[in-house]
Amino acid sequence: MIQQQTIYLPQYRRGFHLITHVIEQELNELPATGILNLLLQHTSAALTLNENADPDVRHDLENFTNKLIPENHPVYTHILEGPDDMPAHIKSSLFGANLSIPITNHQLNLGTWQGIYLCEFRNRGGSRRIIATIYS
Amino acid sequence: MIQQQTIYLPQYRRGFHLITHVIEQELNELPATGILNLLLQHTSAALTLNENADPDVRHDLENFTNKLIPENHPVYTHILEGPDDMPAHIKSSLFGANLSIPITNHQLNLGTWQGIYLCEFRNRGGSRRIIATIYS
Amino acid sequence: MIQQQTIYLPQYRRGFHLITHVIEQELNELPATGILNLLLQHTSAALTLNENADPDVRHDLENFTNKLIPENHPVYTHILEGPDDMPAHIKSSLFGANLSIPITNHQLNLGTWQGIYLCEFRNRGGSRRIIATIYS
Repeated sequence: MIQQQTIYLPQYRRGFHLITHVIEQELNELPATGILNLLLQHTSAALTLNENADPDVRHDLENFTNKLIPENHPVYTHILEGPDDMPAHIKSSLFGANLSIPITNHQLNLGTWQGIYLCEFRNRGGSRRIIATIYS
Repeated sequence: MIQQQTIYLPQYRRGFHLITHVIEQELNELPATGILNLLLQHTSAALTLNENADPDVRHDLENFTNKLIPENHPVYTHILEGPDDMPAHIKSSLFGANLSIPITNHQLNLGTWQGIYLCEFRNRGGSRRIIATIYS
Repeated sequence: MIQQQTIYLPQYRRGFHLITHVIEQELNELPATGILNLLLQHTSAALTLNENADPDVRHDLENFTNKLIPENHPVYTHILEGPDDMPAHIKSSLFGANLSIPITNHQLNLGTWQGIYLCEFRNRGGSRRIIATIYS
């Protein structure tokens, strides 16, 4: 059995944000056993799994990633949409826009310390859209 | 219901290439609702989602990635297959060889600006093989 | 049809480890056609696909990744769990904790040179847990 729905996220500021609770609230009752597939329909943001406890992890991810994939790098030619745009595309492909999370006993079966992150790489990314597909 | 097929890609030159149309042409009629899973069966190339419009994004991805994960790095010991080989393995794991794309109304449900990229990291990677599995 | 089980990995030392045979041994007989979804339930380790032959590839991945995402970077504030902790979180999101592998003729349908890696990013990561979900 397959169910599918679109989840609309409000605008988040640039950075890494824990959205597990948002995803869970948007979904109907989960099946006993299955998989939740999430696809973020954007190329300057990402979805990833990381620590759900200390917010310093999110801050450090943002700050380190900005050093690793900097703005205004001399190789960039795609610069018309602002200095945050091309780095956002690179980050999106490195972090990925796609997750497949097991469902067990009607719940997302993440690790104890695991949460779903929206990685917003644009300064003003606007609202973001996720296609959620559950198969059971 | 599960359907599976192998997609053979022609040789692409080193770089990032938009292959959404190739994938769509190879697949039979898509089901109303489902998931398309793609696995690239290689370890020196990758599949990712990124912008389908401005080709500068693909050029910048290639040029920046070559700076981030350079050839001839002093730590490399796996060098017998040429200077482009070990960086290609690293890039393959960072970009990933695996995508799961929702199917809605008999079509791939990507974002408006999202396309499927083959990331060819070898100078002469030869033809590449993808296992496409559709469940519905 | 969906089957699900937990796979407990023994403690591995820091580095990249080929675990295809461990996964295959833990799984029951595979269906004729399907998908194996693997979720590593941790945020300081990862799962990836890479070369299954030359162990130098695993050594180079470890050594290069340690240069790319170093310990003791000045931006890190999440440092209470040791200098290997924050880099491990960053690496986990870049390599990813999630794989979906096609099953064909009752076997994992990986490429000839492709193997499943556990990427252990902590010095003492302890045992690790994977949720394996097979749908067919």
